[in-house]
Order: sequence, then C-alpha cells, then structure tokens
Amino acid sequence: MPDDVTALSRRSLMMAGGATLVGLGTASAQGASGQGLPGPERPVDTGKVENGRVSFPNWRGPSDRPAPPPAAPLPPAERVGFAIVGLGRLSLEEILPAFGECRKARPVALMSGSPDKAKAVAAQYGIKPEAVHGYDGWDALARNPEVKAVYIVTPNALHRDQVIAAAGAGKHVLCEKPMAVSSGEARAMIEACAAAKVKLMIAYRCQYEPYNREVVRLVRSAKYGKVRLIEATNTQTMSLPEQWRLKKALAGGGSLPDIGLYCLNGVRALMGEEPVAVQAQIHSPDDPLYREVEETVAFTLRFPSGALALCSTSYGAHETRSLTVQAEGGAIALQNAFAYQGQRLFLSHREGKAEAREERVLGAKNQFALEIDHMATCILENRTPRTPGEEGLQDQILMEAIYEAARTGQTVALKGPERRPSLTDKEKAREQARDQAREQDAKGLDPTRGPEPEEAD
Amino acid sequence: MPDDVTALSRRSLMMAGGATLVGLGTASAQGASGQGLPGPERPVDTGKVENGRVSFPNWRGPSDRPAPPPAAPLPPAERVGFAIVGLGRLSLEEILPAFGECRKARPVALMSGSPDKAKAVAAQYGIKPEAVHGYDGWDALARNPEVKAVYIVTPNALHRDQVIAAAGAGKHVLCEKPMAVSSGEARAMIEACAAAKVKLMIAYRCQYEPYNREVVRLVRSAKYGKVRLIEATNTQTMSLPEQWRLKKALAGGGSLPDIGLYCLNGVRALMGEEPVAVQAQIHSPDDPLYREVEETVAFTLRFPSGALALCSTSYGAHETRSLTVQAEGGAIALQNAFAYQGQRLFLSHREGKAEAREERVLGAKNQFALEIDHMATCILENRTPRTPGEEGLQDQILMEAIYEAARTGQTVALKGPERRPSLTDKEKAREQARDQAREQDAKGLDPTRGPEPEEAD
Amino acid sequence: MPDDVTALSRRSLMMAGGATLVGLGTASAQGASGQGLPGPERPVDTGKVENGRVSFPNWRGPSDRPAPPPAAPLPPAERVGFAIVGLGRLSLEEILPAFGECRKARPVALMSGSPDKAKAVAAQYGIKPEAVHGYDGWDALARNPEVKAVYIVTPNALHRDQVIAAAGAGKHVLCEKPMAVSSGEARAMIEACAAAKVKLMIAYRCQYEPYNREVVRLVRSAKYGKVRLIEATNTQTMSLPEQWRLKKALAGGGSLPDIGLYCLNGVRALMGEEPVAVQAQIHSPDDPLYREVEETVAFTLRFPSGALALCSTSYGAHETRSLTVQAEGGAIALQNAFAYQGQRLFLSHREGKAEAREERVLGAKNQFALEIDHMATCILENRTPRTPGEEGLQDQILMEAIYEAARTGQTVALKGPERRPSLTDKEKAREQARDQAREQDAKGLDPTRGPEPEEAD
Amino acid sequence: MPDDVTALSRRSLMMAGGATLVGLGTASAQGASGQGLPGPERPVDTGKVENGRVSFPNWRGPSDRPAPPPAAPLPPAERVGFAIVGLGRLSLEEILPAFGECRKARPVALMSGSPDKAKAVAAQYGIKPEAVHGYDGWDALARNPEVKAVYIVTPNALHRDQVIAAAGAGKHVLCEKPMAVSSGEARAMIEACAAAKVKLMIAYRCQYEPYNREVVRLVRSAKYGKVRLIEATNTQTMSLPEQWRLKKALAGGGSLPDIGLYCLNGVRALMGEEPVAVQAQIHSPDDPLYREVEETVAFTLRFPSGALALCSTSYGAHETRSLTVQAEGGAIALQNAFAYQGQRLFLSHREGKAEAREERVLGAKNQFALEIDHMATCILENRTPRTPGEEGLQDQILMEAIYEAARTGQTVALKGPERRPSLTDKEKAREQARDQAREQDAKGLDPTRGPEPEEAD
Repeated sequence: MPDDVTALSRRSLMMAGGATLVGLGTASAQGASGQGLPGPERPVDTGKVENGRVSFPNWRGPSDRPAPPPAAPLPPAERVGFAIVGLGRLSLEEILPAFGECRKARPVALMSGSPDKAKAVAAQYGIKPEAVHGYDGWDALARNPEVKAVYIVTPNALHRDQVIAAAGAGKHVLCEKPMAVSSGEARAMIEACAAAKVKLMIAYRCQYEPYNREVVRLVRSAKYGKVRLIEATNTQTMSLPEQWRLKKALAGGGSLPDIGLYCLNGVRALMGEEPVAVQAQIHSPDDPLYREVEETVAFTLRFPSGALALCSTSYGAHETRSLTVQAEGGAIALQNAFAYQGQRLFLSHREGKAEAREERVLGAKNQFALEIDHMATCILENRTPRTPGEEGLQDQILMEAIYEAARTGQTVALKGPERRPSLTDKEKAREQARDQAREQDAKGLDPTRGPEPEEAD
Repeated sequence: MPDDVTALSRRSLMMAGGATLVGLGTASAQGASGQGLPGPERPVDTGKVENGRVSFPNWRGPSDRPAPPPAAPLPPAERVGFAIVGLGRLSLEEILPAFGECRKARPVALMSGSPDKAKAVAAQYGIKPEAVHGYDGWDALARNPEVKAVYIVTPNALHRDQVIAAAGAGKHVLCEKPMAVSSGEARAMIEACAAAKVKLMIAYRCQYEPYNREVVRLVRSAKYGKVRLIEATNTQTMSLPEQWRLKKALAGGGSLPDIGLYCLNGVRALMGEEPVAVQAQIHSPDDPLYREVEETVAFTLRFPSGALALCSTSYGAHETRSLTVQAEGGAIALQNAFAYQGQRLFLSHREGKAEAREERVLGAKNQFALEIDHMATCILENRTPRTPGEEGLQDQILMEAIYEAARTGQTVALKGPERRPSLTDKEKAREQARDQAREQDAKGLDPTRGPEPEEAD
Repeated sequence: MPDDVTALSRRSLMMAGGATLVGLGTASAQGASGQGLPGPERPVDTGKVENGRVSFPNWRGPSDRPAPPPAAPLPPAERVGFAIVGLGRLSLEEILPAFGECRKARPVALMSGSPDKAKAVAAQYGIKPEAVHGYDGWDALARNPEVKAVYIVTPNALHRDQVIAAAGAGKHVLCEKPMAVSSGEARAMIEACAAAKVKLMIAYRCQYEPYNREVVRLVRSAKYGKVRLIEATNTQTMSLPEQWRLKKALAGGGSLPDIGLYCLNGVRALMGEEPVAVQAQIHSPDDPLYREVEETVAFTLRFPSGALALCSTSYGAHETRSLTVQAEGGAIALQNAFAYQGQRLFLSHREGKAEAREERVLGAKNQFALEIDHMATCILENRTPRTPGEEGLQDQILMEAIYEAARTGQTVALKGPERRPSLTDKEKAREQARDQAREQDAKGLDPTRGPEPEEAD
Repeated sequence: MPDDVTALSRRSLMMAGGATLVGLGTASAQGASGQGLPGPERPVDTGKVENGRVSFPNWRGPSDRPAPPPAAPLPPAERVGFAIVGLGRLSLEEILPAFGECRKARPVALMSGSPDKAKAVAAQYGIKPEAVHGYDGWDALARNPEVKAVYIVTPNALHRDQVIAAAGAGKHVLCEKPMAVSSGEARAMIEACAAAKVKLMIAYRCQYEPYNREVVRLVRSAKYGKVRLIEATNTQTMSLPEQWRLKKALAGGGSLPDIGLYCLNGVRALMGEEPVAVQAQIHSPDDPLYREVEETVAFTLRFPSGALALCSTSYGAHETRSLTVQAEGGAIALQNAFAYQGQRLFLSHREGKAEAREERVLGAKNQFALEIDHMATCILENRTPRTPGEEGLQDQILMEAIYEAARTGQTVALKGPERRPSLTDKEKAREQARDQAREQDAKGLDPTRGPEPEEAD
C-alpha cells in the first residue's frame, strides 16, 4: 500500500501493462531521472515537499476521513533535549517510550538515585553515559548544553526542591502532577522559575489528550447549551503498603492528590471557570494501606454559572476513570477520560422522535508525547504553556479546601485564583481579542492557563 | 506519579515528614550512597535490574490489571537496520513513525524515486544523507553494513523485481502485501530469497496485532467450540482516478488484492486450515474510477471442517473493517479488525438466563511496530517469520481462484497449499511436538506459516 | 407522576398552598363539578378528548423527546376477533401475550390438537369454552361471528390445508412464515384466498417492527447513497431431535426456511428490488439432528442496482441475528435485527475529522402486536396487507433457487416476481403517484407488497 | 414457528412425507382423537399441562438461553380488580396499557375529575360505565366488590387524602411516588391504612424492574466485594410552567421529589443500609419555570459500611438516568436505570491481562405490570409489599434532610428508620432465618421493606 512512484515513466507503465514485468524495477530506476516524461502519464499521488514537509493529495472518497498529513518530526539534533529526573514506573513505562512518538523532543540525560538502573536505561534509549547523573548531579546537568529542559518525575514531596534546583541550573521545567504537597510549595516553585526566567509547566497530560480537548471544545462551543451537572470519577486499587504513594510525607495525601486531582483539574479545564464553593466527604477503611493517607473522597464543586460537579476518587475501587457532562441540550460522556489510553466519547441528544447516542471516534494519540511536545514548542517558540505553575497552584489551593470541607462537614467558600500566568504581549493581545468577541459569560475564562495548545496533526 | 526513590534514606523520610522540605533533594542524593540504611525503611518499589531490563513489583490491587513490564528497547546500535524502499503515504504516515515504537529495529536507509522527498524525510528521521538512494541504488545499499533488511513499500507490480534485487544485495526482505500481482511472481520471489539465503516476510500486519491474535487464540482454543460461519468485510471509498491503486498494471486488481486480501488472509489465519472451495461475485459501477479494476467483491470460502466464510470488500462503501466468528457456543466480533487502530473485541455467549456480550479490552499497540520487530527478531535469532513468502503465495493463488469463480459463476475447487516454508530443525521439532499433542482436527494447521510470533510485552 | 387535576378548583389550589392540606381531597372532589371555576387557575395539563382519544400538551423541554400520545385501544367489542390455530410455543410464549398489547385485535377462539392444553389456555385468556376447537372444528369456527380472522401457527407443512380451510370458512387469514413447504403450495393458498375473497397475510413480523422499518426508511431515503453490500445472519442452536422443525416432511427444510428466511426476506424488504442471481453453499455436520434437514447455509444475492447481499443461517451457532448495510456514505447495523426484542441500531459515517457511530434509540414495541394490529387494520379498513401471500410466494421461489444453487455449485439466475398483489383502486392510485415522483431507480419497488403500514404510535 | 402437533398421527406423518399433502388437515383432525397412536411417532414437543399451566421441553442447544415458560395469566375473573384514581399522562401512557401485560390484575374502575376523559378511557379499556367516578365517588367505589385495590396516580399533594379515603373504603392501596409532600403526611397515611387493615404499597417501580433487581442482587452477593462509590443521576428537561409539577403546593418540591427520588430510593435499595449523613447543594436558574420549585440538586450520602453515594437530579438537563456502582473488584453501570424502558447493564472487571466490560442482557419486562402484579400477589397471598408505606416515609424524611443540608451548607446527620413494616409471622421467621445465615454486615438489611418479591417468569 505505498504511494511512491514518481519515477514510473511512461515506458515502465506500458511495460507494467504487458504480460511480463521483468525489468520494471530497472525501468523505474531509469525513469527516476524524469527526463522527457509527458505529464499526464505520471501518477499524481507521489506527494509534494514544502518547507521540509511532505504532503499528499487525499485519495479517499468524501465519505471517509482523509488521512492526516504525515508526521514531520524535527531533525533529531533540532529537537529539545530533556533530562528525565526519576526513573520509576511512570518514566520507564510511559514517558521514555513516549519520546519515540515525539516530534520536537528527545531524551538526552537522566537523573536517578539508582545508578545501575540509570545505566541500563540510558543504554536502551541511546543516552550518553556521561549524561547520567545521581540526584546530586545538578551542576553537571547545568553544564550540559544538550539539556534544554528537565522533566521531574519523582515523588511529590521532592518536586519543590528539584524544580528549584532545575531553575537554578537554568533549565526549563516540566513537573509531574501534583505540583507539590502544599500550596506554599507551589508558590515557591513559581517564584523560583520566574526569577530564573525559565518556563514551568505542570504535566496535566489530559489537557493535551485529543478526546479531553474535544470535550472542552464541545462545552465551550455550547453545543448543548448550559452545563447543569458534571460527574467525574477516578478510581483504582492499591497494594504494596511500602510504596511512597501511601506515605503522607512523600505523597502529601492519598487518592485525592494522586488521581482525584484528575477529576478536579478536568472539571476546571472543562468549565474554564473557577469553583466558588466545595463540599466533601472522606472515607478510609480500617486497612494498613490507609494508615497515613485517605482511600476514598467525594467532593462537590459549585461553579459561578450554576453548574454543580460531583467528583469522586478512590484507591479502593476497580479502575474507573470517567467524565460526564449533562447540559440542557445533551450529554457528553468520556469513558477512560483520565486513563493513559482507551478514551471513548459519547454524545447523547434528541434526534426527532429518537434518542441519538453518538460515539465519536478520533485518531488516538500518545498523550505523553503530546504533552512533552507542547513543552518543547513553548520553549522553541517562547510561548506560555497551557498548564503553567499557576494552574498547579490553584489545584493545590482547592485540594486544601477539599480536605478542610471534609474535616469540618461545612461548605467551604472559595476565592478566585491567586495568581495568573504572565503571558507574552502577543498572547495577551490575542486573549483580549477573544474576550471581546465572547459573550459576557465566557469572558476571562481559563485565568490560570496559557493559550490553547497547537492542534496535534 | 513516579517510583524512583531508592535513594531516600531514613533520614530524608523523617525530614519529608517535617514542616519544611528544604534540602530534601540533597538528602536524597546523599542517601544514594546507600550507606548504613536499615532495610525496612527503604521504599520497596524502585524496581530491579536484570540482564539490562528493569522490572517493578506490582503495586495495584488484585482486581486491576498489573502494568506490563517496562519496554526494554535494544540499544540503538544493536537494532536491526532497515532500508525503506518507497516513500509513499504508507511509509510516511505509518511505517516511519512506527519505528519510533520499535524495540529492535531502526530505519537506516531510504530508497525513493523522488530525491527531494527522500532528502526531507531522511532529515526528519536522522538518516544519513549518504544512505538515501534512487531506485537504482541497490549496489550502494548492498555495501551499507548498517542495512540488514529492506522493507518494500512500493506499488504491487514492483514488488517482484525489488524483492529479487534486495535478495541479490544480500538483504533480508519484508515486503508489503499483496506480495505480487500474480502467483507466478510470488513463486519467483520465494525462489530468489531462498537462493540468496535471506529471509522473506510478507507484511501481514494484522497477524501481529494483539486483538487479531486474541481472536485466533480464542478460535484455536475452541473456547466456543466449532466455528460455523465467519463474516469478514473490508471496505473504503476512493477518489483520485490517477492513483496507482486503480491501475491494473500497477495494482494487479482493485479492492480484492488491496483490502479484500485482509478478509481472505484474516479468515485463513483464524482457521489455520486452507479453504477447499470458493464462490464469488463482482460488481463495478459505471464510474471512471473502475475502468481497470473492480469495485466490489463478495466471496465465500468453504473450509475442511465445515466452516463457511462470507467475505466482502469494496472501494465504494464507507470505511468498515470487521470480522465476526459464529461458533457453537458463542460469537466473536472484532470491529475495525483490519484498521490501523481502534480494534474492539466482543465475545457473546449465554450466561445462565442472560446473554452476555463482553467487550475485552487489551492494551493497544502499534501493529506496524510489532510487525517490524517480528522481522527484526527473526533476523536476530534466525527464526522463520510467521508470514513468510509461502503465506503470500497462497493468497495469490486464492485470489486467482476468486476471480475465476466470479468470471464463470461456478464454484472453484481448491487444492492444498503449493509450498510450505522451510522451518529450522528446532522449529520443525516444536511443530511436530505440538501436532502430536493436538486432536486430529487441529494437526498440521498453519501449513504456510512459520511459528507463532513472540508475545508483545 | 400523574396529570389529572382538572377538578382542582381555585379554592383547593389556595388551600394546597396553605400549611395543612386536610380536606384537599374533598375540595378536589367538589371541584369536579367544575362550577364557576375561573379558567386561568386551572392547570393546563389535563389533556383534551377528541374522537374518543385523549391527548396532552408536551411538558418536556425541546431537547427531550416528547412522549407519544396515549394508546387509544378500540373498545374490546370493536376489536377484530382472531382464532388462533395451533397452541405451540410461539402461540403461548409470544402471540397470545401480545394480544394484551394489541389495540385493534383480540383472541376469541382457539384450535388445537391438545384438548387439555386448549382448555387451560382458553381459561387464562378469557376465551369462551365453546370457542375452543380441535383441528376438525372449521365448521364451528365458520359459524362463530366473533371470529373475523384466523392466525395459523402450526408446522409449515400444515399451513396449506389450514389456510385453505380458513378461507373456506370465510375468515381472513394471517399465516406464520414460512408460508408453506413449496412454491406450489403457496400458489394454491393465494388462489384459495382470492377465490374466497378473504385477505391473506404472511406473518413477517420484522416488516412491522420499528427498527427494521427505520432501516428500510434510511435505505430508501438514500441517506447514505447507494447500497454496495449487505450482510444478514440469523443463527441459533438446536437440540431435541424429535421436534418437528427437524423433520423434513413437516418443516420443509432446516435452518433456511425457519430462520434463514428472515435474512432473505429482510434483505428483499430493505432493497425493495428483487434479486437477479443467487449462489449458495450448505454444510451439515454428522449429527442426528441433521439427518433430514440442513444445519448451515450461506447464500449470496445480487440485486439489479448492483448491491450484493451475503446471507447466512445456521442451527449450529450461538444465537446471532444481525443485519448490516454498507453504502457509499455510511453504514447501518441492526443488532438483534430478527430477534423478538432487543434491536439496536447503529449508524456510522464521517463527521469532519472524526468517525461517528450513532446509536439511534426508538421506543421499543411488541412486534407481534404490531403485526396483528396491522392485519386487523387491513380488515377494518379494507386494505391490502404489507406482506400478502405474494410476498410469501416470492420467498418460496427464492428458497428453491438457493437449494438448487447449493446443489449444483452454480449461480442461479432469477426472474422477477411471478405474482403481484391486487391492490384496491385507491392503493393503486397512490402507488402510481409515488412512482411518478420517484427517480427511475426507485420506480416499481416492492412489487410483491401492499402499501406501507400505518405508523405505530 | 409453532409447536402444536400432538394430533399428528403416524399416518399423517407418513402422508406429510409424501408428494402431496392434500387432506393432511383432515388427517390431523382425525388424529386428534389420539386413538391407537404408537407413542414414539408422536412429536415430543407439544408441551404438558399441569395445574392449569402449560410448559414445553427446551428445544434450544445448551449454548442458547432457553425460553422462559409461557405466561400463565389468571383467568380474568380471578385477577385483582383495581380502581385507577387520576387519569393524567402516567395513567394513560403507561399504567392502563400495562394492565394488558399483567397476569394477576385488571382495571375495573376509574376515578377522575374529567368526566369526558374518564368516559372515553373506560370505553377503551372495557371498564363498565357505572364504575367510572368523580373524585367524590369513594362511597360508590367502596360498594363495588370488583374493586379490591386502588392505584392513586394524582398530584403529590392529593395522595394523603386519597389514600386515607381509599383505606376508609376498605380497599388496598397502591400509591404513586413520592408518597406525599411531607413526612407528616406519610405517617398519617401509614396509620390510616394500618387502622383499616388494608395494605399500602408505594409504587417504586424500579424495585420491581429486572435490571435494577439484578444490580441489587450483584451488590448483595458481593460479587465485586465492598462498594466504595455510587453515582446516581436522573435528569430531564421541562417546559409548560403551568403544569402541577412546577407548583410547590401540589408537587411539594421540584426535581428532587419527582425524579431525584429515584436516585435516593435506588441507592438505598441497592445498599439495603440506611444513610447516616447527607450533604447537598441546590441550583435553580433565573427562569419562570423555577419560581416555586428547584431545578437542580446534588446530594451525597454516607452509608454505615463506608460507601459514599453521589446523587444528582435536574429539570434542566437532557434526559439521563443512570446508576453506577464502584466496588473493590469491579464496577456495575446501569444505563437508563430509572427510565420506563431501555435499561442496559454493564459489568467491568479484570480478566487476566485484559479488562472485561460485559453487557448482560436480560429479557425486558414492563415494570409497571410487574409492580401492579406484585401488589396483586400481596393481596391474593396476604403478603407484605416490598415497598410498603414505611419505605416511602423514610424517603420523605431523607428529602427533608437534603433540603436542610442545602439550606444550611452543613452535613446533616441521620438516624435509623423511624418505622418498620409489620411483617406476617411467616415473613418474620424467614427474615430472621436469613439474618442468622448472613455475615454481620448484612444483618438487618432492608429495615423499611417487605420480603423480596417473587421472580417474574
């Protein structure tokens, strides 16, 4: 199923029509010189090259989706070099493999507390031995010009110091969520990066994942009118009591900051608004796993436009990760909303006398690769990340309110976001123009976010 | 969500529990030396390294799927180097990006009739300029020791000569399907590769795709007993009359060899048996697209065990690619069976007084990467590919029978496969052992195939 | 959740607003006289009565489906009285219970060879003991003025004589499918009913079932353009070798006339056209169940417009009853198409860059009740049934062709339908007007059918 | 597809095998006398009659569901006669048609404030004109011996007086939900029925619907272990501001008592436990529809076993009615849980390396018919209804707590149920036996309910 036949000359085509095809390869090769070939006989579908990108005419009928244009990765040497800090499961199972699908980023250095592991991993991914460091290797990292950015993938309680260290090394920072174990830490991280003039992005991968983005687009376009109710749930089960996620000092909390955060952040990203009130309940069973951190949290957010969001998370329930939006004119359900893959989007609405429940299938993408490429794009083009430190800080503040609401049994009132990202002048102008075009209700949305990320191909 | 905290000492853990975490990074770094740390305080989930591979203990509860082990790609220099011949849509949209997900293969050379395109693509994928060739570049390719294998991705009518050229250059060959435009060509290709002692594999990607493999596994295990009926359909729409797929001389036929082949090969792979009779009907509308090749084919295969397979393909119907197996005890349906992604597997059976329709969700994988890695594995370990030239030849013979049946309106009787792959002694022994253990009906299955491929992680 | 508050007077509403509601019932009751009640205070949603039918204003918002109007069954004495001939499973499990959902029909007599059973069933359904007959009771049935129609639900080989007997008794006839065990029998039945001037309808329940009708509507409206391929399958498993369905003399064949007929009739009803060629294969395993009749049949129909239909049926595969239509612009899939309930309709098409797979949910209806009510309507209003004897005859002719094709291994060419139903003058005029308005391709569709049935509420 | 051929003699079978079938009907009729027929030649599948019920041997293979036994309705005169009080939408669209599917109940009287409507409806359903009453017709109703029970289907604020009137008339009472507009009213209703020694059942139809019952069964059997989280939502849109549902005096509230009640009652029925704490938020937009009653409510219930239930309801969102249970070992989702039809049940759990999402398909039933037949069974067999007045009272108490929680912003603590139904001695003994057999956690479940209802066929 290939399409590369520029070189097929008129003669080779005639031969191809003949009884034997002996010599066709040679004929084609000769044809490659392209001399004297009358135009029409040439197959038209060999594509064209512009600005280093190849594109092809659509060859499908109008009732099938055209293929997206071919990927056009930056040449390896031009991609943004990342140092990966922390070589736990997430780095090895998801992030390092995802670099194979990145177009603008590549891993060039590692930092780990396990030298043997780091050495093995470096070999697998073609990272130079001299770019492999222990957790005290910040100075060496700072001196490595291939490293433009650092991706912090360590336990939550280490983020603050490592982000500050990375900023101190003059590197841009992509930091895993949750940003920190307290809002105070988050503030310090924002300040350190601002002072060092490096970009800080929090790795809210779902905000870069195509299905989640489609849900945001549908809600913002008011396809189904006003949102009344949102349900978001993120659950999984745990074992291995020794793991750091179950240690309060390292994780900062239990299911809430680890996976419930996806509900909180997802609902906020969907609405664009910030919640004004929160209620919460927590339950943890009598189980050694939950000596330090909570198992199950239910919390309800009220938004200025009147929407109520019912969120829940648990370390004690079979994996479920879903998001549902109920609006005046229809419902949107995203199954596996917060999972690494397997998103499935359903839109329900009336269709005359029938009820329509449409599954909308998009091309699946690696959301880690999209997230990393977004950070690379921001660095290459001096843009503000969609999910900067201020986005992470707001979630830290809200998680503190959720814990308070659960503790007191009272509704906790919330103020607007404490900090807003500093946009570039160009970005600011564009946001203002958009706000002027918007209806009153939609002005000033996304106060803690940078501009919308580029479309993935 | 990281797991890399080997280095966290008892002291740092205590500090982590304190009010401030200043200096934790440093503390961890110190801890990395691991001196005098009492065992139990160490987090257990930092993984271990064996034979260059990292693994982690499962941290999920028993009711959630454990994560597969981390990918362990071969170091880049040890991966099998491929030359990609043909830079059409398939190469650019699917195959070259898929190398980013390969563990054992990498692209090291290109051959194309479009020098500008080849140059641009080489830059994107970090291929050296000197490894970029025109279609006459076989000698240079032969001399490039980095090139161990050639992946032929050109129009069907060119496969024969190019495979022979690759064999002549001493390179192993992975050739896109359909293998050729006639069974005679296929025979010549098999002979040339055998003579040159290089491996020949046909790129039947679905036989490496996890969902298709699960269907084969379910059928072979007789989970639902005897198969009675199979329905396979593969349709899409076309435009662009100039494209080579619509030229008989280049494509060898229309929808049948291009996409109907997936039905034919898929049904054969499922059953393991070879069909004994075929009926067929063809319809092409009065449309310039179908001046040379057919639009729509329906064909029915009868298998020795009694199963009947109803297959259909069209260039004139909205994209549908599905496979259904109806057996005594249940039904298996694979949606998007032949698509590049989006497979969904449903198993239906009685469950007491209820009917159960179970969707079984596997981890999605890039099937091109799996196929390429299989070829690389066969080269690295001197194994016979699951889908060798003999597998492709059998499909060519059957497609010729389908055309004859449609032309004559008569049932065409079929003989057993003409050629069987030469297995290594070790492979032969293993097949014989398996056949001895099998019931009569299942002896000698897969006569045109190599051994089952390795499991993807 | 009721809506009947006409009687609530201004006074009672005021009281209802008060702290206590003591006496409200009384107040309402008084209000029932309706004297002197000022209009506006009355709730508006009590509905209105016109021509003996009640209707209510829609109280749902525009984004929800309005409820259909309330059922308005004919008074029992005005409903068409049916005699049920044969008290096997179908009568007891489906047909007699379905009368409880009929609006225009009621069971008033029974005929059975099992007197004890007939007596028990008559008591359950309130049928008078004197209206219960043995198979020799045609004279008594003829004399019973409550019996307007006879529903024949006996083994296939008995249909011919029983239909002729019913016609002889001057009763309209609804006959289960397959109409008979040969085309010759079918002709005799048509002639007998024509001679007796009674209506003859074959019980093709799916042609009255709302989801199947929606599929027909979608195809005829060319929503997705030309149909290229249809797949229809109807399978189930059998045991109990003594049952009449497995006796050739009683059933006339195996899976084909019993359940494969739904594929054949369903595909014809969908297209409106009649097939011009058929191919077929049959397989029956070595099993006592299949000593007399076939287990599995695959057959392929070619339609004048070029569509190819792949049909399959088996008595040896887990229950699957599905219908798929693949057209230029989209695909239509009806799960459980031929089942008694549980139809699920999916429409697939491109939606911009996405693929949409829409489930369309209609209100479920009892298809037996719809079928019986259609017969009753035809009797009450002197209309031609949608599925008259001529529709059944055409299927008998086609099944004979399928058996021939399987026997000879050759494609069998088919002629147009042998007989067309005699429409009333009014019906004829309407059909001609429709044909004049139609495009060439769609003229003269449904040659063996009566006019479209009325819409179910 | 019939099965009634007892009468087919050996002779007629032989004839049936012959070339012509002339006279077969006659032959069968003769055979009906059954004289001298050798056993084995008789088809075995004509069923048997025992205690007035017919049953058939299963004729499906083991891999298909056997058909349930035929319905065996009570003879009409033995069914429990109901008077329907209120002829609004629910009565006309659902309840009166449902009687056609009842086996043990029939409508014999009507009470309405709209004489014309009542007359028209009585004619449609064969109800005698003298059994049609205005809202002051309680004395006449009392005197009608055909009326054994009254089904109250009027606006909520009328329930109290009408139930008391029905009890005063000595009739058993089935009352629509919500039971009343206050807990005080509910207590009075319970007391009146107890004093009059008539049964009182609240029409919680979902507790009789097969899919909801299957969910309860799955949860109680601990198939997936402990429940952690439940999400229940019930929404629809409204128009027609004049309708009584939007008048506080008549409805008692807005979405909460009308449709949110299904979430509340459904969650309680699922757990069997009673909640110990509730939080709530309410939102109503600035819209004339919501001048008196609320539009949207979110409430969270905490159960003694630790499960948290997030419930939501709205009159301002497109119709969605779903229930999800997340437990340790798997998840249960019931789509359309609270709808009149269209329930779809999904069970998710790990299946080795895969995730299984099983749709479990049960036979659909009319839940109104099941509910009414349950009341009839309780009357015929002197049993306590599954959902007696005490079940309704508990919901009234909880709705009052939800409104309080929303008003104060505080968690409201809840006590155990105030009243428990008086079971018969036999029922008490059975409950005690069950509790002794149960584990500690499951003792004393369902404190406000009667015994489990009978299985529907």
